[in-house]
This record gives sequence, structure tokens and C-alpha cells, in this order.
Amino acid sequence: MSQSIRDNLKRLLAPRHLAFVGGRSMARAFKRCAEGGYQGQMWLVNPQHDSIDGIPCVRSVAELPCGPDAVFIATNRELTLTCVAELAAIDAGGAICYASGFAEAGAEGLALQQQLLKAAGNMALLGPNCYGLLDYLHNSALWPVAHGGKAVEKGVAILTQSGNFAYNLSMSDRSLPVAYMASVGNQAQLGIAELMDVLLDEPRVTAIGLHLEGLKNVPGFARAAHKALEKGIPIIALKTGVSQIGAELALSHTSSLSGSDALYDSLFQRLGVIRVSGPVSFAETLKAAACGNLPKGRSLIALACSGGDAGLIADYAERNELTLPKLDAGQVDELAQVLPAYANLVNPLDFTTAIWGDGGALERMLDSALRSEADAAMLVLDYPAEFTGERKECDLLLELYSAALKRHGKIGFVTSAFPELLPASARERLHGHGIAALQGVEDGLAAWGRIAAYQSNRQALLDLGESALVPLCPQALEGDSELLNEWDSKQALKAFGLPVPAGVLSTADQAVEAAERVGFPLVLKAVSAQLPHKTEAGAVALNLRDAQALDSAVQQMRARIGAYAPHVPFDQVLLEPMASAPLAELIVGIKRENDFGLALVIGAGGILVELLKDSKTLLLPTTDGAIRAAVLGLRSASLLQGFRGREHADLDALVAAIRAVADYACENAGQLLELDVNPLMVGAQGTTAVDALIRLGQA
Amino acid sequence: MSQSIRDNLKRLLAPRHLAFVGGRSMARAFKRCAEGGYQGQMWLVNPQHDSIDGIPCVRSVAELPCGPDAVFIATNRELTLTCVAELAAIDAGGAICYASGFAEAGAEGLALQQQLLKAAGNMALLGPNCYGLLDYLHNSALWPVAHGGKAVEKGVAILTQSGNFAYNLSMSDRSLPVAYMASVGNQAQLGIAELMDVLLDEPRVTAIGLHLEGLKNVPGFARAAHKALEKGIPIIALKTGVSQIGAELALSHTSSLSGSDALYDSLFQRLGVIRVSGPVSFAETLKAAACGNLPKGRSLIALACSGGDAGLIADYAERNELTLPKLDAGQVDELAQVLPAYANLVNPLDFTTAIWGDGGALERMLDSALRSEADAAMLVLDYPAEFTGERKECDLLLELYSAALKRHGKIGFVTSAFPELLPASARERLHGHGIAALQGVEDGLAAWGRIAAYQSNRQALLDLGESALVPLCPQALEGDSELLNEWDSKQALKAFGLPVPAGVLSTADQAVEAAERVGFPLVLKAVSAQLPHKTEAGAVALNLRDAQALDSAVQQMRARIGAYAPHVPFDQVLLEPMASAPLAELIVGIKRENDFGLALVIGAGGILVELLKDSKTLLLPTTDGAIRAAVLGLRSASLLQGFRGREHADLDALVAAIRAVADYACENAGQLLELDVNPLMVGAQGTTAVDALIRLGQA
Repeated sequence: MSQSIRDNLKRLLAPRHLAFVGGRSMARAFKRCAEGGYQGQMWLVNPQHDSIDGIPCVRSVAELPCGPDAVFIATNRELTLTCVAELAAIDAGGAICYASGFAEAGAEGLALQQQLLKAAGNMALLGPNCYGLLDYLHNSALWPVAHGGKAVEKGVAILTQSGNFAYNLSMSDRSLPVAYMASVGNQAQLGIAELMDVLLDEPRVTAIGLHLEGLKNVPGFARAAHKALEKGIPIIALKTGVSQIGAELALSHTSSLSGSDALYDSLFQRLGVIRVSGPVSFAETLKAAACGNLPKGRSLIALACSGGDAGLIADYAERNELTLPKLDAGQVDELAQVLPAYANLVNPLDFTTAIWGDGGALERMLDSALRSEADAAMLVLDYPAEFTGERKECDLLLELYSAALKRHGKIGFVTSAFPELLPASARERLHGHGIAALQGVEDGLAAWGRIAAYQSNRQALLDLGESALVPLCPQALEGDSELLNEWDSKQALKAFGLPVPAGVLSTADQAVEAAERVGFPLVLKAVSAQLPHKTEAGAVALNLRDAQALDSAVQQMRARIGAYAPHVPFDQVLLEPMASAPLAELIVGIKRENDFGLALVIGAGGILVELLKDSKTLLLPTTDGAIRAAVLGLRSASLLQGFRGREHADLDALVAAIRAVADYACENAGQLLELDVNPLMVGAQGTTAVDALIRLGQA
Repeated sequence: MSQSIRDNLKRLLAPRHLAFVGGRSMARAFKRCAEGGYQGQMWLVNPQHDSIDGIPCVRSVAELPCGPDAVFIATNRELTLTCVAELAAIDAGGAICYASGFAEAGAEGLALQQQLLKAAGNMALLGPNCYGLLDYLHNSALWPVAHGGKAVEKGVAILTQSGNFAYNLSMSDRSLPVAYMASVGNQAQLGIAELMDVLLDEPRVTAIGLHLEGLKNVPGFARAAHKALEKGIPIIALKTGVSQIGAELALSHTSSLSGSDALYDSLFQRLGVIRVSGPVSFAETLKAAACGNLPKGRSLIALACSGGDAGLIADYAERNELTLPKLDAGQVDELAQVLPAYANLVNPLDFTTAIWGDGGALERMLDSALRSEADAAMLVLDYPAEFTGERKECDLLLELYSAALKRHGKIGFVTSAFPELLPASARERLHGHGIAALQGVEDGLAAWGRIAAYQSNRQALLDLGESALVPLCPQALEGDSELLNEWDSKQALKAFGLPVPAGVLSTADQAVEAAERVGFPLVLKAVSAQLPHKTEAGAVALNLRDAQALDSAVQQMRARIGAYAPHVPFDQVLLEPMASAPLAELIVGIKRENDFGLALVIGAGGILVELLKDSKTLLLPTTDGAIRAAVLGLRSASLLQGFRGREHADLDALVAAIRAVADYACENAGQLLELDVNPLMVGAQGTTAVDALIRLGQA
């Protein structure tokens, strides 16, 4: 994104004037902005009418008194092209193109979209094929239909690939403070990465929510996500296309290639992006992030007025890796004086309905409970229906809790057993106190669990530095590829520090002689890039104990390869000392993935790779810490950690070996297509790559 | 439950008259019933006042004109005892005891509770320590506080161990049709099992929802759940106490022993009970079950007006094992004529907003889409806020969809992206058409996924018969236990059909001679109930190839056992042919669990048992089908199914072997404490128990 586009995008996000190009629907959009309290100048542009629904029209873009900061264009695709060019000519800030029929509609549309992009020049361009931009900081709604939501002083920014999702979210009844909501459409010029980057410069944006089918600009996204980490602005992502059908839909909807979902997980994890699974968790997690300060860690002191709620809290805390530290003896003593004898004085605390509505007792209970080391406090509070006249006791508790949090300098949130039983009035009151009002105890604790790790995770990631976070995304390779043979592959990797057996390259005829330099027992392998599947070809003989065994193995191998692949000469052989039995076998590979660059895959070897589908994916570059975490995150990691009284694996050596593979890949990112080390034998002392294969493309 | 109590409980559930015993809160309860439309006679009983808040009081229970069908007692625990006795004397139907301070409060309370139970005699008794009963069929509310909800013609019955949960659920804004809601408290007489049993005789109860901390009567619950299966009434259970802290809370709250959560899973699974994880999934799954007919299977035709919604549907369908059959060519042709060119003609179908509000086009779209083999249809529909004036288009689609479902004889449901965007008016309209209105597309598809399997699962379970579904729950054993040695254990199991090696029992001195009857290579084991850990004791020698090897192994074993356990005589030995390498090793065990009876545990053997924590639990008795499903449900099941080109395991033989263990356990249920077959060697032909151990208690 050029500096000029960037400056123009800033105008679009804080517009002094708005123009709407189109007919009656634009007159309505114009009115909504006026009624919504937008303070700047506004024009309606229409060549055929002097006025629409009482709003005077400007005849053409050229007749506008200045280039407007923000324009919504609601004409057909051909007129949209003309209009964008005219706007660029008068130095407008940004234009939102509502029309569809561009890249999402095939080759002809794609060509039109390229013209549109060119016509925009340095003007900021959102869409085409999008609903536009809701701006609750300036009360501007560059938006073709009705919308809900209300003005805020600060709030989250939401970027979505679905206008309908934005429409529904604006109508939702969750008191999510939204600063901006943009429907990004085809992302011809401004994509999610570019918008994130500029939104992060607005200090009133407290968190960013993304609703994605796929990313169009992985490195740009990664740089923006790194910037968000630096600023401490959480990014929450709802990424669809997890399923096969979902991935196909994404492609047809906004021409987004979903890519493998595991790559997104890997990308999000390395950048501290919090992933959620649906509209509710999206909204609730954004609320948890947007309100008040973020907690330092995962511990909670939890309060509820019933045993049933306490039971739910206990289960959901464990599921979301939130801890519930025990009450100390002093707290128990104090609480025993306030609460009835049957109260169970533990965390989560069921403070019972015995003190319901009793301000003094509630305050004493709160003061005891909140004198806790926990990183945050939570309260379950369900408002009964208005007709009961029983809401005032809830309001009382809400205010006492809010005041007690303030007194104790504690971060806290409130949740309700049923989402709808925390009414808007209560939520707004809580948000006014900087306390997140999370709807539904199950969703609420899940949301809190997601953000509870943010701060510590953020610091750990920032310590790595941007170069470790933004993945290398080398260009895709086309054309022929070349397979290196085992010897060359091992030598290439050895140069980067991968331990390989102390083998000797020889010929079939000189094998017995060469064996003296290796010693017995040894392994004999044929070396040829034409025999990638050595076992099937009979090109491996293990555990040869003496010269005679070696000699006969050579003869046998010659015969078997001759039968398996008559065109492949049996010429070079590799002799290696027989490896001793390892604690575990791993597979380490590199795959080249479009958009995402190089992915390092670490998996369980032997029978476990198929049995457990046990692997982790890291985008490159990566760090020793991430490699170690991936290894220890394997299901079969216990094999490396003193399983059944065996020795512990030499983890440092293992990490160093995998690091060597990653280093080779980064250094050769321009041409590496794929790489496999299989098996990597992991021992109590050291690690050895017993086989390796590299495939290179044309640089 | 005696027939008299049962008859009285039926009176309590369809009361001709109500009595409230207590003060002002009971006067309010009295008024709520009167205002709520209860049609029967009502009395307020209070010894100190002639009237309270305008309601005349009867001075004592004895002065009531007849024994009321239903009484709410809101006095302290001592007066509650007296009152229950007086009510029993005048042949009241049922009494609800609100007072706490009984079994949940320790030994003294437990004694009082036993007196209470005795005082009730044949009168039905709910509680003590409970909120009572909301009855929306008869508009009676035997309930101490306000409540929400409204009269229904039919609906679900909800039983909960938390009065607060019931209170909040009654206030929830989800249009769940509730027939009965009972807070069961301490379950002194009427527990969840007894209430379920009688509620299942009420044809207006469409499903049963349980909110449990633990079960007090497992066999009774199982019989009631079987009855529910027979009647086709789904049971939905929200069971807390999954976490360690949660289990401890349950114990203190209503003195429920949660037991191991895996046992509940096993119990629920064998009885077709649908388990949910929270208040929202509880309410939504009950709605899916309560409205209209239940679908035959898992396939869906799904409709939405946006690509964003379609993407969510695709992902959630896969996650919940719902299938989305492809549209056929005829459907695609027809839809292409109705929908714009950019519409993606697949299932889930994004019918786009291009035809929004166009009744004719919507109807044609619906007629094409619903001409589907799918078991059910779904529509995503989010209502915008009232102020937009855009709800009428939603109402139009709702009615067209309802009519089209009727025309096509299809079961269907509606869901919304955001739970709150399906307003009460729309939900009630849908429920009027027998269409479930499920709030939130993520929760909605999860709820539908749970009930989509109900019908086929139900039939499969019913085919097994009650005796296979209700677990044996033999009494707990106390006192000493006796360990059978390997030989005796194997012989006992062999008698039930478990294949064991063709071994010979001999003595250490005669081992070499006896070996002739076995043949080499063989295995030598010391036989003694005092050496349960044979490997550690050096009491096993494998793969002995000849008489000399056997002789020296005997000498060595004598020495090692002498050192390991000097007090144990080295006397009897077992000689068995050496087993060949199996395809997989399993562990098969029986554990005696309080309340649940005998649990059969089938797990991966060798290193996998620790590496994968890979096991399944089945309560006894069980069936071949359940055993087979458990084996194939192991994570390591692929080892049995032609893993990496190996042979397939002899599954029939494996199931028969596990069945033999189960049969032995059932036959010896009165005294079996635990049993272990480890390993069970699974081959391509047959299966062999290589080691076995049985522990018996005092019958």
C-alpha cells in the first residue's frame, strides 16, 4: 500500500464529507447518516433528478465542490468504473464500490476489476462487491441498507468477507462496542491486511475482529498482526472453510482460496491471533477483549449464588484452562461469618441466596472473596424478567461488585447462565465500569479463557521479534523439479548442522573395501535420485555383520534393483554404521504451500504417524522455542520424556537437528520444493537423520 | 416406588386442588396460581392469621375439607416434619418440602430426612431442599418465588438438582415449550428416576431434560430411560461434575456422588441419552426434540441468503456429522432459472438477497430445494431490529418456508446466525407449524446433530431389549478379597469361552518332564496368587527353546523369586507354548464401580495404553454389537484393520473373547471385584489371553 493510498484511507476512516452516488437507496443512506448524527458535509450525486425524497442532488461527481473524503458508489459495475475515475481526478479520499460482477464473476469480471483498480489510482478503494463501512466513531454509515449499533467513544474494528454477517452483527443485541465495521468484498485494493494496518493507528480501536474465508495477502496480514501485538491490540478471527464443502464455498463466494486449515492455525498461533468458531464466540471474545484491561493470567476467583452455577463454572474453567485458586484460611474464616452454615466455602464460591439483596453482607462477602491473588474475578448474574420486580437486587449486586473490583484494583467480568438473562441495561452499566458483560456462562468462560492467555503469550512472541513472526512467503515455483539423492541431501543438510550417520560413499564394486572405513555392523544403500522408494526397490540392506554378508547383500541388491527398475544403474552405494534402537522416531519435512511459503512439519514416525495422525506444522522462519513446543505438543511426546522408565530424549539435540532442517529451508527458500527427513532417530544422547530427501524447483 | 406412591405422584402432577402452607411468600404463590389461570381449588394454611394479603387462611392441615392433591410446605424443617405427617393422615396426594437442613447438612439432617420419609408414608414427597414444581399443563406453580414461562398444550419435562437453574430457565427467552419443571432437591423419596418413570406416562410430555450432578438410583434411571426409548421420548442430560472441582462441589451441594464421568458417558450411551454441555445446548436440543417430528437421519438440505451463512453451515454440518447431499441436475436447472447468475447452486444453498421479498421467486426456490431426499431442511433467518421496518420480508420467507415444508412433507428447522435475531414472535409462529426455532447457527446445528441420530439409534437399542440396556447393579462388596492365581483365573475364564494357551500346570521339579506335553519354544511362569506382579518378581521366562534352557530358567527363577519374595514358595509352574507375534495387544478388564455395577474396560495394550490413554468403558451386561463398536472405536483400531498392509484381525474371535470375559463377570456379579486380561493377543486367526487375574470379594 503506497503512502498516498494510506493517507487517503485515513481520510475514508475519518471523513469530513460524504458523497453518495446513486438513486433512492442512496437518499435513504444519506438520511440515515443525517439522523445518526454525522457532523460533516454530505452530497447526493444523481444525474437524472434534481432531488430525491427531498434531498437535493448534485448532477455529477465533477460538479462536487471538492474531492469528498468518502464516497459510496451504488451504481452498476460499468458506471462504477467511470465514477471511480472521476473521483480520482478530483482527489477524493476513498470510494466504496457496492456493485458486484467483478472478480467473483469470472474472467470478464476480473478484467473489469483490474480496470477499476487502475482507475482508482491513489484513491483508497473498498470492494467491489461489498456492503461498505460503518463508522461508529464519526457516525458515518457508507452502507446501502439499514444497520443497528450506536456511537461509541472507543471500540472494536470488524472486518468481514460477508456483508450479511456485518448486517446481522450490527443488529445483534450484545452491547459489543464497535468503532468500525467493514465489509471487504473482493479486496481489489484494500484487503484485510491493509485495513488492519491503518486501523491499528487509531487509538480508539481496542481490538480487531476478522471474519474470513481466506487471506489474500499472508505476509501483509502477518506484518499487521505483528503490529497489533506490539500495540497490545488483540486480533480475534472467525475463519470459515474448515470443512471440505466450506472451502469450496469460500472459493466461489469471494474467490478466496482457503488453503489448508492447519496452515491458518499455524499462522494464527505464531502471531497470537485468537481463533473462534462462530458468531457468538466472535462477539463474546471481542467483548472480553474490548472492555477494561486484559488479565495477566489464567487464574480466577469465581462467584455465583447457586450450587448449580458453581458446578458449571468448575467444569468450564477446567475445559478452558482457567485455574481456580483455593481460598486462603483468612478468607474462609471471614466468609463463614457472613454466609449461612450450609455454604460451601470454596472457589468457585456459591454465596447462596441467603444474603440476596442484603447490601452489607454482599459487600463483606465481596471484600473477602476479592482479596485474592487471582488474575481476575467473575460473577454469575441472571436477571429475572421485568414483571417479577426482582431486578433491583441484581442491580444492587452489580453495583457492589463493580465497586468492590475498583476497591481491590481487580479486573473482572460478569456472565449469566443464560445469554439473554444479562439485559442491555446491565451490560451497558457494566461496560461503563470497564467490566465485560459476557452472555452465557459457557460461552463467557470460553471467551475469557481465550483472552486470559493473551498478555503472557504476547510478551513471549514480541521477545522473538518481527523477523521470527512474519513468515517467509517466497514466490511459487513453476516448471521442472530435481530430486537430490540421499547422499547429496544428507550432505546439504549436514552443512546446516543436521547430524547424519558417519557414512562413506562408494561404488557397488568397492563396497567391501570401503566398509573397513565404516566398521560392522553396517547398512548398505543404493544411492540414486531415480530410486526415491528404496525399500520397495530392494535398495536397502540393514545390519550387515561382516564382509561376507555385505558382499552377498551387494549381489542381491544388484539383482533386485535390476528387476525393479532395469533402467536405473546400480552404481553408487552408501555405507553407514547401523544405528542403535532409538527412544522414538520422528519425521521432519518441509512443504511449500502457496501463499504461506514454507511449512515445517514435525510428526511421529514409525507406526505412530499413521496410527495417530500425530504432527505439528510451523511456518518458516521459526524459533527453537516453537520447535520445542511443537515436539512436546505431539501426542506421542511422552515417548521422549522418560516413557515407562526409559531414558529421556536429548531434547536440545533434537531441537537443534530440526532447527538445522529449518535453516537449510530458509536459506534455500527460493528453490526448495519439498524435503523429508524420515526417520529422524531420537536418542538419549543425540539425534540422527537416517534418511533424507530434497526436491528443488527452478529458482 | 410403590403403586400407592405412584398413584399419589400422578395426583401431584395433575392436581385438582392445591394447598400452600406458610406465610406471606405462600400467599404470593397462591396469587400467582390464581392469576396464572389454575382452575382447581386452593387453600392457604397458616395457624396465626385469619388471612394474609387478602387471602383467607385455613388454621391447620387437619381443618382442610379433603386431602389436597398437591401441597407446598414452606415452613422450617421441624414444622415440615409435622405437616407432612398430618398431610399423610388426611390422604393428601403429594407434598413439596422447601426447607433445607436435611441430608445435605450432615448426620443430624440425614436423621431428620429419614423421619420425614417415614412420615410421608405413601404420600408422594418432592424434596426436601427444593424449589418445587412448575406445571404448565395445569397452570399450577408449587413454587416459592416468581417464575417465567407460560401454559402449553404439550412440552418437555425438566428435572434439575438446582432450583436456581430452574428459575433461570423459566425466565429464559427461548420459547422452549415446558410442560413440567421440577427442582428435585435431596430426592429423599422421589428422585429423578421415579419422576421420569411417571412423567413418561403423560402423553403431553414430548421430551425430558435432566440437569444432574449425579444419579442416586442408576438401575431405576436405566429402566426409566429404557421406557423413554420405547415411547420414543428423547432424554437430554446436562451432567455437571466433569472436572475434579465440579465433582467435589456436587458432593457438597446435594450430596450427589458424581462417580467417574466416563461411567455416565457409558450409561448415557447405552440408553440413547443425549448429553449436552451447558444451559444453551440444553434448551436448544430440547427444542429440537420437542417440536414436530424427529428426523430419520443425518442428511440436510440447507438454505441461507448469504455466502457467509452458507460457509458456517458447511463447517458446522461436518463437525456435527450432518451430511449435505448434492443437489441433483434437475434442481440445479430449476434453481438457475430463479436465482441470479452469480448464485452458487450447491447444498448449502446461498439463494442470495436478489430474490429477497419476492414471494414468487422464493416459493419456486423452496420448491426446487425441498424436492430433496434429505431427512430434513434448514433455513438460516436473522430478523433485523424492528425500527428497520424490514421484518416483514423475514415473516414472508418464514411462512413460505413453513408452507413448503408442509407441501413437501418435510421435517425442518430454522436457525439464526445470532441467537437473539430469531425473535419470540417468529419462534412461536414456527413452533405453531411444528418447526423448531433454534437460536444461533452454531448451537442450532449442534442441537440438530444430536437429535438427528436419535431415531436410528433408538431402534438399534430397542432391538437389543431391556435386559441388554439396564445395567446389572449388584450390591457393593465389603470386607476381605481373594486373588485367584493365573492358572485358576484362566481356567475360570476358559469355562466361559475365553481362549487361553494350551498350557500345563506342573511343579518346578517336574517342569522339564511336563514340557514334553507342551512342546518348545515355551513360556515358563511361576503360579502363585502371592505373585501378582510376575515380571517384577522374575517369575516369567519367555521363549525357552529346549529342555536345557527350561531347566536353567527354572533354577534362575527359583533364585530370583527367593530374593524378591522369600516368603512365597516356588512350587507350581505353568508351561505354555510361546505365542506368535500378534497384530495388536489389548487389555480387557472388569472394574466394580459403586452404583454403576460392573464396568468392562477395553483398552489398547503394550505401549499404547499409556501413550494414547486409549480405552472404552461398557457397563454390564453388554452386547456383541457394543463390544465390537467399542473395539473399533479405539484410537488404535486401525491396527486391527489391515494397518500398513498387515492382515486384518479376526474380529469375530476378538468379540467372542471379550464377550467371554463379560459373561464370566455377569455370572459372578455377586462376588467379582476386579478382573484383568493383559495382554489379550489379537491375531489374524483367533485371539489368546496370555495372562489373566481375578479378584473376588465376599459374596
